[in-house]
Amino acid sequence: MTSASLRRVTTGLGDRSYDILIGSGLLDAAATWDGLPASADALIVSNTTVAPLYAQRLQAVLAARHRRVLTLSLPDGEAHKTAAVLERIYDTLLEHGCDRKTVLYALGGGVVGDMTGFAAACYMRGVPFVQVPTTLLAQVDSSVGGKTAINHPRGKNMIGAFYQPQRVVCDLDLLRSLPERELSAGLAEVIKYGPIADPVFLDWIEANIEALRARDVEALAHAVQRSCEIKSEVVGADERESGLRAILNFGHTFGHAIEAGQGYGVWLHGEAVGCGMVLAAELSARLGLCEAALVPRLVRLCEAAGLPVRAPVMPTERWLQLMRVDKKAEAGEIRFVLIDGLGRAVMRSAPDALVAEVIAAHSAPAVA
Amino acid sequence: MTSASLRRVTTGLGDRSYDILIGSGLLDAAATWDGLPASADALIVSNTTVAPLYAQRLQAVLAARHRRVLTLSLPDGEAHKTAAVLERIYDTLLEHGCDRKTVLYALGGGVVGDMTGFAAACYMRGVPFVQVPTTLLAQVDSSVGGKTAINHPRGKNMIGAFYQPQRVVCDLDLLRSLPERELSAGLAEVIKYGPIADPVFLDWIEANIEALRARDVEALAHAVQRSCEIKSEVVGADERESGLRAILNFGHTFGHAIEAGQGYGVWLHGEAVGCGMVLAAELSARLGLCEAALVPRLVRLCEAAGLPVRAPVMPTERWLQLMRVDKKAEAGEIRFVLIDGLGRAVMRSAPDALVAEVIAAHSAPAVA
Ligand SMILES: NC(=O)c1ccc[n+]([C@@H]2O[C@H](COP(=O)([O-])OP(=O)(O)OC[C@H]3O[C@@H](n4cnc5c(N)ncnc54)[C@H](O)[C@@H]3O)[C@@H](O)[C@H]2O)c1
Ligand SMILES: NC(=O)c1ccc[n+]([C@@H]2O[C@H](COP(=O)([O-])OP(=O)(O)OC[C@H]3O[C@@H](n4cnc5c(N)ncnc54)[C@H](O)[C@@H]3O)[C@@H](O)[C@H]2O)c1
Ligand SMILES: [Zn+2]
Ligand SMILES: [Zn+2]
Repeated sequence: MTSASLRRVTTGLGDRSYDILIGSGLLDAAATWDGLPASADALIVSNTTVAPLYAQRLQAVLAARHRRVLTLSLPDGEAHKTAAVLERIYDTLLEHGCDRKTVLYALGGGVVGDMTGFAAACYMRGVPFVQVPTTLLAQVDSSVGGKTAINHPRGKNMIGAFYQPQRVVCDLDLLRSLPERELSAGLAEVIKYGPIADPVFLDWIEANIEALRARDVEALAHAVQRSCEIKSEVVGADERESGLRAILNFGHTFGHAIEAGQGYGVWLHGEAVGCGMVLAAELSARLGLCEAALVPRLVRLCEAAGLPVRAPVMPTERWLQLMRVDKKAEAGEIRFVLIDGLGRAVMRSAPDALVAEVIAAHSAPAVA
Repeated sequence: MTSASLRRVTTGLGDRSYDILIGSGLLDAAATWDGLPASADALIVSNTTVAPLYAQRLQAVLAARHRRVLTLSLPDGEAHKTAAVLERIYDTLLEHGCDRKTVLYALGGGVVGDMTGFAAACYMRGVPFVQVPTTLLAQVDSSVGGKTAINHPRGKNMIGAFYQPQRVVCDLDLLRSLPERELSAGLAEVIKYGPIADPVFLDWIEANIEALRARDVEALAHAVQRSCEIKSEVVGADERESGLRAILNFGHTFGHAIEAGQGYGVWLHGEAVGCGMVLAAELSARLGLCEAALVPRLVRLCEAAGLPVRAPVMPTERWLQLMRVDKKAEAGEIRFVLIDGLGRAVMRSAPDALVAEVIAAHSAPAVA
C-alpha cells in the first residue's frame, strides 16, 4: 500500500446505496471486497487491453471469496459496445451454468463498465455487480450513477438500464498504465464538475493540474473523491434523468457535435468535452450569465490538462444540425447546459446567430 | 359494450402502482386509455396472428392520443422470443426517431408481452408500456407482476428485467378468437390460484368451468379478476422473487419436466402445468400435507378444463434429471411447491422414491 489513505463516498438511494472506495493498493487488498456477496460463482468482464494487465490479480484476490472465478475478455473499444458482444457475456454465464447469485466484476473503462452493468441488470433479471473502473473517466464519471448501456447502429447508449452496482472500487494505481491521452480525456470530466457545482474545486484543480497529470496518488484521490461526491449528489436528486442530471452534460452538446462531426473516435469523448466546455462558457458569458473571465480560465486549464481547446472547422449549419439531433434537443430546440454564475448550471436555449459567433471565436486555427 | 361491468385491480408497489382493467368492449373505448402518457409517438408491438385481428382497432383508438401510432408485427411463437427479434423492436423505434417518451403497447399473448416489456425496460433505459394481453394465460398470469424476458439458446427467460407496465387492459372479448387449446392452457393457470391461495375460488372455478370454456364474459371477468388479485398480492409481497413468489409455480416443476422432456411446444405450457398440478397434489397428499381428496378433485377439474391429466411416460431418471435443472433447484435438490392444507402452499423437497411413485401413479396410459 502507498500513502494514499482510503476514501469512501457513500451513494445511491435508500436500500440501493453503495460505497465508492478510492485509494491506492485496493485491487490486491482482501478488505476491499469485504461485505460483497460471496456467491459460488464470479465473472470478471474485462477487455483485451486491461485483462492482461490486471485480471489475474483480481482473480487471485477474488478466489478467496468465490468457488469459481471466470474471466471474459471482450474486444477493446467503443465499436464493440454492441448487442453482439453483450451476448458473449450471457453466453459465458450460461455455458458455465452461472446462477442468479453470480457476481459480475467490470474491470475496465467506461465501455466495459457500461456493458457489464447492463449484462448484470438483465442476466436472470438482475445479478449483483461490482465496478472496478480502470480509466480516470470511468472512476469519476461512468461508474457512478447507475447508467448502463450498449450502442445501437443508429445511436450511442440507446439500449440500457438504470442499475446500481454493489460497490465501486477506484484503485488509483491502475491509472498508471493509462495512455496519456486517455488520462487527459478523464481530466475533462473532472474539470467539468468545477464550473457546474464547486468553484473551490475548480481552484483546486487549477492548482493541482500538474500533479494530476503526473498521476500523483494523493491528487488523484482528491479529484476522484470530489468528482464522485458531486456526481452522486446530482444523480441522487434525479436518478432517472428528469432534469437536474442534465447539468452533468456541461460541454457535452458542443462536444457531441465535435465527436459526431469528426467521426467517432477521431477526438476522444473527453477531448471533445474539454473544447465543448470552452464553447459553453463563452456562450454563457455572451448571454450575460457568467463573467467573461471564465472563458480564458477554462482555456488555460484545459490546455494544462492536455486537452484541445480549438474546435474543428465545420460549417455552422453542420454544427447546428449535429446539436439538434443531440438527445437533449426536444422538438428541434437546442438546450445548452450553461454556467449561471460560477458553481451553478442551467439549461437554456440560445439564438443560432449567437451560437455561430461563439463557435467562430473558438474554431481552429487559433486567432493570432 | 356488453353486460360485463368494468373491474379494476390496482397493483404494483408505491409510485409504481398501476391498474389492471378487466371487462368487455375495452379495446375500442376511449376511456380505457385515459390517463396514460399521451406522448407524440406510440408503437404497438404484436404478432402475425394477433395483429390482423386487433391491431387496426387499437391503432384507431390510440390515434386520438398519439400523433403517430406505429405497428410492428413480430413472427408468432415462443421460438421467436429471442435477442434477434427483440432487436427488431429497437430498430423500428430508432428508424422512426422515437424518443424516450414513446409508449409501447404489447398486443398479444405472453410472448409478445414479455418481449415488449423487456424492450420498454431497455429502450433509452426505460419507456412507458401498456399490456394488452390477448390470451387467457397472459390476462391471468404473464401480464401481471412485472417480469419481462427473452429466451437464450441455453434457457428460457434467461435475459430480462423486472419492469412494470403503466396499465394492463384485459378485454375479454379478445379471447373469442383464441384457439380452444390455448384457452384450456390459460385455465390451468387460473385453477392454480385456487389450491395455493383460495379454496373458495377453487369451488367457484369448479362450478363455472363450463361457462369459462364457453367464454362467458361474466365468468371470464371473475376468473381474470380473482387471478390477478391473487397474483398481485403474492408478487407485492415479494417483487423480486426471493421466496414467496415461488408458490405461483405450483405444478410447474413437474410441468417443466414434461415440457422439456417432450420437447418444447409438444405440450403447451398450461397443459403441462395442469398435469403437473395433479402430480404435485398427489405428492402433497402422500407427504401428509393435504387431504388425498384434492387429487381426484384436480383431475376432474383439469379434465373439465380440457387439460391432459396423465403424464407422458418417461424413465424416472429422466424426470428427476429434468426437475433438477429446473431453476428452482439449488445444489441438485428439487424444491416442489406443495399444498399444505387447501389454500396454502409451501416449498419442500421429497425423497426421490416417493416422487417416482407419484409419477408412476399418474403416467399414461391410465390405469384401468
Ligand atoms: N454510464 C455512464 O454514466 C457514462 C458516463 C460517461 C461515459 N460513459 C461511457 O464510457 C465510455 C467511455 O469510457 P472510457 O473513456 O473509460 O473508454 P474505454 O473504456 O474505451 O477506455 C479507454 C481506453 O483505455 C484502455 N484502458 C482502460 N483502462 C486502462 C488502464 N488502466 N491501462 C491502460 N489502458 C486502459 C481501454 O482498453 C480503452 O482502450 C463510453 O462508452 C461512454 O458512453 C458512460
Ligand atoms: N412474465 C411472466 O410473468 C410470465 C408468466 C407466465 C408465462 N410467461 C410467458 O408467456 C409466454 C406464453 O404466453 P401465451 O400462453 O400467451 O403464449 P403466446 O403468446 O405464444 O400465445 C399463444 C398463441 O395464441 C395466439 N394468440 C394470442 N392471442 C390470440 C387471440 N386473441 N386470438 C387468437 N390467437 C391468439 C398467439 O399468436 C400464439 O400463437 C411464454 O413465453 C412464457 O414464458 C411469462
Ligand atoms: Zn462525458
Ligand atoms: Zn405458468
